[in-house]
Amino acid sequence: MDLKSKLRHVMGFPKEGIDFIDITTVLQDPEAFRCCMDAFEELADSMENFDIIVGSESRGFIFGAPLACKMGKGFVPVRKRGKLPYKTISAEYDLEYGKDVLEIHADAVKPGQKVLIVDDLLATGGTAEANIKLVEQLGGKVVGLVYFIELSMLKGREKLKEYKVNSIVTF
Amino acid sequence: MDLKSKLRHVMGFPKEGIDFIDITTVLQDPEAFRCCMDAFEELADSMENFDIIVGSESRGFIFGAPLACKMGKGFVPVRKRGKLPYKTISAEYDLEYGKDVLEIHADAVKPGQKVLIVDDLLATGGTAEANIKLVEQLGGKVVGLVYFIELSMLKGREKLKEYKVNSIVTF
Repeated sequence: MDLKSKLRHVMGFPKEGIDFIDITTVLQDPEAFRCCMDAFEELADSMENFDIIVGSESRGFIFGAPLACKMGKGFVPVRKRGKLPYKTISAEYDLEYGKDVLEIHADAVKPGQKVLIVDDLLATGGTAEANIKLVEQLGGKVVGLVYFIELSMLKGREKLKEYKVNSIVTF
Repeated sequence: MDLKSKLRHVMGFPKEGIDFIDITTVLQDPEAFRCCMDAFEELADSMENFDIIVGSESRGFIFGAPLACKMGKGFVPVRKRGKLPYKTISAEYDLEYGKDVLEIHADAVKPGQKVLIVDDLLATGGTAEANIKLVEQLGGKVVGLVYFIELSMLKGREKLKEYKVNSIVTF
């Protein structure tokens, strides 16, 4: 299936001049969603074997949790500040204007565990860097990062040179 | 597996006096997560047959998306205000103090489609009512609601008398 053609482009969201790629048209189509998760599994299988999947709030949950379920792995949510109830560690990342913070439970990754990071979109790579920092601070080893969509002109991959990065579709 | 014993209780989150039930200990344990998703599937199978699963931001994504993937259904995300890029409809729901708004894409559910609503927690039922309103405004038919956790003393089920409601564990 041509997954690229199943994505919807919404011009002007969240602001003028942006061509926003809407994943919901894939999710709501059972055949396209299945095909997308099969593609995620294939890319994940091409990485070194791993123990758990880390996905960040909110769209990272939509692909990370099904992939963990499909592959028999655990799933660890990374969340925005103040959302996780137990003891956390945090990492800052850059927004277009200013900074934001992501958090992970301090006991979510055990030292030596191998981790796959899953998200919907690789853009500038800021969120990816924050996710890596969180996993490595806990002693985990990032075996790779897998994305549904990569916006290659934003060069996120250059920030992640030391890691294996795979994406299903590239614009 | 006794899933109840795999949940972590965090006292005093998000504020004093609250016994917060933390699902992340289930998610990060591959065996417990698999067992939880199997239990979701069993409850979903006991409902009338359905076309798509609706899950709301953010924890509804963590169970709704894997269940849709596992059962070969489409997944429709319900999100907080301003997060969905395309044309939306909205529904208000009550918070402890004040109100908030949930949105769904206007083309996410087709008239006559049968919908299962999936979420992590049934508490007062406010979010459930908003989800139902959104689906029904689009002409969808809610065949039921399935939860990981039900807090029975908050009586959410009483608000949902006209619907089939199932939960995996009850406190």
